[in-house]
Amino acid sequence: MTAVAESPRGISPGFLNELRAICGPDGVLAGAADMHVYDCDAYTIEKHRPDVVVLPTSTQQVSEVVRVCAREGVPFLGRGAGTGLAGGALPVGGGVIIALTRMKRILEVDLRNRRIVAEAGVVNLSLTRAVSADGYQYAPDPSSQMACTIGGNVANNSGGPHTLKYGVTVNHVLGVTLVLPDGEIVRIGGKEEDRIGYDLVGLVVGSEGTFGIVTEVVARLVRQPQTVRTMLGVFDSVESATNTVSGIIAAGIVPAALEMMDRLIIQAVEAAFHFGFPLDAGACLIIELDGLEAGIDEQVERVKAICAANAAREVRTAANSAERDALWKARKRAFGAAGRLAPSNITQDGVIPRTKLPQVLREIEQIVARHGLRVANVFHAGDGNLHPLILFDETDPEQLRGVVAASEEILRTCVAHGGSITGEHGIGLEKSHFVTCQFSEKDLETMGQIKGVFDPQGLCNRGKLFPSGHGCMEVTAKRRRSVAL
Amino acid sequence: MTAVAESPRGISPGFLNELRAICGPDGVLAGAADMHVYDCDAYTIEKHRPDVVVLPTSTQQVSEVVRVCAREGVPFLGRGAGTGLAGGALPVGGGVIIALTRMKRILEVDLRNRRIVAEAGVVNLSLTRAVSADGYQYAPDPSSQMACTIGGNVANNSGGPHTLKYGVTVNHVLGVTLVLPDGEIVRIGGKEEDRIGYDLVGLVVGSEGTFGIVTEVVARLVRQPQTVRTMLGVFDSVESATNTVSGIIAAGIVPAALEMMDRLIIQAVEAAFHFGFPLDAGACLIIELDGLEAGIDEQVERVKAICAANAAREVRTAANSAERDALWKARKRAFGAAGRLAPSNITQDGVIPRTKLPQVLREIEQIVARHGLRVANVFHAGDGNLHPLILFDETDPEQLRGVVAASEEILRTCVAHGGSITGEHGIGLEKSHFVTCQFSEKDLETMGQIKGVFDPQGLCNRGKLFPSGHGCMEVTAKRRRSVAL
Repeated sequence: MTAVAESPRGISPGFLNELRAICGPDGVLAGAADMHVYDCDAYTIEKHRPDVVVLPTSTQQVSEVVRVCAREGVPFLGRGAGTGLAGGALPVGGGVIIALTRMKRILEVDLRNRRIVAEAGVVNLSLTRAVSADGYQYAPDPSSQMACTIGGNVANNSGGPHTLKYGVTVNHVLGVTLVLPDGEIVRIGGKEEDRIGYDLVGLVVGSEGTFGIVTEVVARLVRQPQTVRTMLGVFDSVESATNTVSGIIAAGIVPAALEMMDRLIIQAVEAAFHFGFPLDAGACLIIELDGLEAGIDEQVERVKAICAANAAREVRTAANSAERDALWKARKRAFGAAGRLAPSNITQDGVIPRTKLPQVLREIEQIVARHGLRVANVFHAGDGNLHPLILFDETDPEQLRGVVAASEEILRTCVAHGGSITGEHGIGLEKSHFVTCQFSEKDLETMGQIKGVFDPQGLCNRGKLFPSGHGCMEVTAKRRRSVAL
Repeated sequence: MTAVAESPRGISPGFLNELRAICGPDGVLAGAADMHVYDCDAYTIEKHRPDVVVLPTSTQQVSEVVRVCAREGVPFLGRGAGTGLAGGALPVGGGVIIALTRMKRILEVDLRNRRIVAEAGVVNLSLTRAVSADGYQYAPDPSSQMACTIGGNVANNSGGPHTLKYGVTVNHVLGVTLVLPDGEIVRIGGKEEDRIGYDLVGLVVGSEGTFGIVTEVVARLVRQPQTVRTMLGVFDSVESATNTVSGIIAAGIVPAALEMMDRLIIQAVEAAFHFGFPLDAGACLIIELDGLEAGIDEQVERVKAICAANAAREVRTAANSAERDALWKARKRAFGAAGRLAPSNITQDGVIPRTKLPQVLREIEQIVARHGLRVANVFHAGDGNLHPLILFDETDPEQLRGVVAASEEILRTCVAHGGSITGEHGIGLEKSHFVTCQFSEKDLETMGQIKGVFDPQGLCNRGKLFPSGHGCMEVTAKRRRSVAL
């Protein structure tokens, strides 16, 4: 297994007592077993044990905890549901995790102005559930939406299958309450549509928790579409499916979602959910259209014609919402189902121009095979946002080395094809050594200075986003040593 | 007329010669008559004369000019077409204007990946014209799009009538080349869809030229809609038109545009363009639907039914693209046409929650009337983005005082109703004293520090965005003195 980096920091009983006075006795965890629960998020390759976990119930409590940390020079970070795939919620070097899971109140629903105000620990899907009876929804829908929190979504500017049509978190979050790293509480943005001055909300969204702790979020609600049509296209090859994606977009159709699953994923998902996917298909496309009832069936026919023109074996249309839900359940839980394929897997998250999908997918397959491993692909094809899942066994040091090497080669391939190293999962800890391959020294210097504006002490979510060393490879080597190979 | 603030700075012959060596003899203007041309933009209430205007033809030249300015401590700023309505391109305290009008090359059109790369001085409409034969467009369309430049759009995060459906500049600009205030050239973002790390592109877009000079822009292209339907709804009152706007949105229809003109504007526009607007109407709505042919006529029928339910007097549909173009020409030139109503006018730019339109419009009318003036309204009703035009005579000091006072009261009213002080024109010089009414000291401190990251010398586009004093009223009084009343 992997080693746990030990905290170098002694946390004093007095410090713990102060935290208990703020959050209550049951709001502070410090026992070894409790700390083990928080030593990683959904990026399981590295573990970092916190010294303390606090569970505040209000912005005021978060502010007081941060103030104590700042005074004592103790690092801290916010954590939502811990579903992040890039290690953004790992307490590098120990310190205090501020878990926002108890801050899960929806503070206001304003349907007339289409706004919702929620605490950071509210689960993504709960936002939509709070307003769905009235015909509204919160649009961004990460696959982890049943667990992940709106605060975590803000940190990572999360996307999801419906990003293609509806955009990502930054397009739907209009304001945040932020506890700055000195404990001060500020409100940035608000309910109004337009941001004035420097776009601080846009800057905070996607800053991966490095500017402070977001405790409340003002988000946009949108009307549920009047109607939805969900299709499953079955293809003999990834190529045909990819050409179909290009064909649909070229026809001026903007599907709500355009998701691809390759053969390995289809097999895993079918084994888990018995949806009825054809096990011998080369690729499946989930194509969802939504909008007004008027004209949607004509669009369905056009999509079917494009599928047929690209040698689709068949196109099924979900007959009702139960069938649609079953299909989405299979897609959104594909990462979990992949657990059937190998003891461990790691999901990469690169972006490439959509037109390069077939070529890059071939290269990824070759890269992974070269390291003696297998790869399964499930991804947002409409966005060119790839999610290769590398299958491995983490008890085998050789395979673990191969995974790390293959992941890097995959990301380099994405950059070489004009893409980038993360589409929606963030940089976090996982890719912090990799940003030098995409950013210049000057970019990083500017970003570091902006970080310094918010967090001059550098205590907030240490070790994320920025490379800890200078050269790409050097840091990689350093990082590799922290994994027990 | 208004006084011109004199430059306190002596520009040496040596400095001028250096600029001439960089930009060529015809690329440097310093004569009094030339300077007069550049002493204001479309915000004509104040004038500030530059010391020098340079007309570079490349990013390299811009960089060299900036380097010389930085070395000499001379303030500088970028300027596009000078169509900005908030005085963002005024050289407060003199200095060097870097006019980007000669940098008007389209550098790359990449239709497969739907990207266009253009120099900052390219006129907004030229982007669309470069790709329209291939069925594409650059979506944001400010009313000044026949003149305004993409660089200016980036500075102000410009919107336009089609913002409602397509979003503003920041949703369509993916990368910029920025000359930093020390002369260094950096490229931020690029062609890829997703931004990683801190969203510096998002930060630069809308920063009103205070972080440096944007010289090149990478923008997204979108498909032209397959079909368009443009309607003109005629109403007896602004109230009925507003209720129609709410009704359309509530029905889940997302029009491409939803624009309102009130009676005074209708009369001015009709006098200028003879489109056939009914002169006795209380308000007209331009309602545009676009998308796929399939189903669009059903949507048109639904919109007509909603208009009828809100007592529309009639709903006309443009029969062809010539009629459509004539209607949009009338709308987009409404500000110009308003010149028929009074010797001078000033356009305000506030945002309010859409649901409060009728109430706020009534209050605006009362405010303006209290100062003995008239107001005409033309605005993006779907966004709640108001554009009251206050009509006055700038040779009458009493009226000028009334305009300034009424403008402030209008913006306060917007803020009081949960809105903000600018929707799309920016803060510029005009509203720089007003931001304290919307931002806290801490907000401004944070923004000031971010400004300092990019521009530690504080030379780049001085006097914009930030209040030069502390209290709202104090600065206002100071600013008022700079206008010869």
